[in-house]
Amino acid sequence: MKIFTFWRSLASFRVRIGLNLKGLAPEQVFVDLFKGQHCAPAYLAINPQGLLPALIEGEGPPLVQSLAILEYLDETHPSPPLLPADPRGRARARALAQIAAGDAHSLVTPRVRGYLAAEFGVDETGQTKWAHHWLGLGLQSIEEHLTRESETGLYCHGDTVTIADISVVSVAVGHQLFGGALDAYPRLAEIIDRCFQLEAFSAAHPLKQPGAP
Amino acid sequence: MKIFTFWRSLASFRVRIGLNLKGLAPEQVFVDLFKGQHCAPAYLAINPQGLLPALIEGEGPPLVQSLAILEYLDETHPSPPLLPADPRGRARARALAQIAAGDAHSLVTPRVRGYLAAEFGVDETGQTKWAHHWLGLGLQSIEEHLTRESETGLYCHGDTVTIADISVVSVAVGHQLFGGALDAYPRLAEIIDRCFQLEAFSAAHPLKQPGAP
Repeated sequence: MKIFTFWRSLASFRVRIGLNLKGLAPEQVFVDLFKGQHCAPAYLAINPQGLLPALIEGEGPPLVQSLAILEYLDETHPSPPLLPADPRGRARARALAQIAAGDAHSLVTPRVRGYLAAEFGVDETGQTKWAHHWLGLGLQSIEEHLTRESETGLYCHGDTVTIADISVVSVAVGHQLFGGALDAYPRLAEIIDRCFQLEAFSAAHPLKQPGAP
Repeated sequence: MKIFTFWRSLASFRVRIGLNLKGLAPEQVFVDLFKGQHCAPAYLAINPQGLLPALIEGEGPPLVQSLAILEYLDETHPSPPLLPADPRGRARARALAQIAAGDAHSLVTPRVRGYLAAEFGVDETGQTKWAHHWLGLGLQSIEEHLTRESETGLYCHGDTVTIADISVVSVAVGHQLFGGALDAYPRLAEIIDRCFQLEAFSAAHPLKQPGAP
């Protein structure tokens, strides 16, 4: 098993947490987003979307998209489970994960901020405002789900870690990397703290990876 | 079962296709995005994110996020399946679905275009260019997956419809609604045509829903 990854990639962060939880330690290949290595032909041959991470295992095309990879890891290495046991619970955990990854994180990636700068002349201040807006909106709606729904427990869904925690943690940390705070999302912040008491989460933190400042 | 939906919502379109494939016809409640009904307290009480669709069924919080809802429908109404039988195939189908929904569609929703206009003064021409850029990038990377990977069949994954087709169709139609063409993505365009030969897809098309122009 081999993973293409980078310290600053929040999607790679999600998959690192999942790998840690499952006790898996694939070979790591670092793709420097700041040097544009993700746009080089060598990497586009692995992942035509030019995004991180990509996971190589056995035969067949590389696995891409963090949430799809996490579901794959969960199906092939069932213990500990990353999804609740019931369909309703799985739907809720997946929805929280998708709000974070698909409706918040995907709006603030380097390619999006780069386009804002190149096409609309948005400077760094504007880009940071943009990032705070979309990450904040995502975190706010997750906070609403967590506070109003009785399914919330010690973690986002019940008392064990699920794919929801993995994804929400990645976006909360992304918000912090952009200089944002979590004070406005107390229930979420409490869960994030609890997650980082686990080695699987803390060891996966972007700032603990090779190449991080 | 009750669904909150709107003709122009591509995420609602995805869930409509899934419901049709499963032979389900829930009561529909229309939430007019153009009139801002999704931001009214009555709808935010259903879905704190203020996005469509939301599905109400039995006890528990409303189900949100189109791909999570589709997985729920697939688990609770297994025939016909919306996911391949093997973990590797499921990972690929989910990844294609997530590229379309999470990395393309989520960037062009009304709230994002509204923010571009309000914060950066991006006019309608700029917003359309933005939409073409992100939808086009998504469709291009999906085309790459479809052409280079032998798992592609009559549909995105093999010879039966999966969640990948549902999601890719929604973004292809979104591209068309913004005036875009599919000529640059021939393998994808062929699959889209094949999907629309199925009543479940054609009856779900945005322009065939109540309120559509």
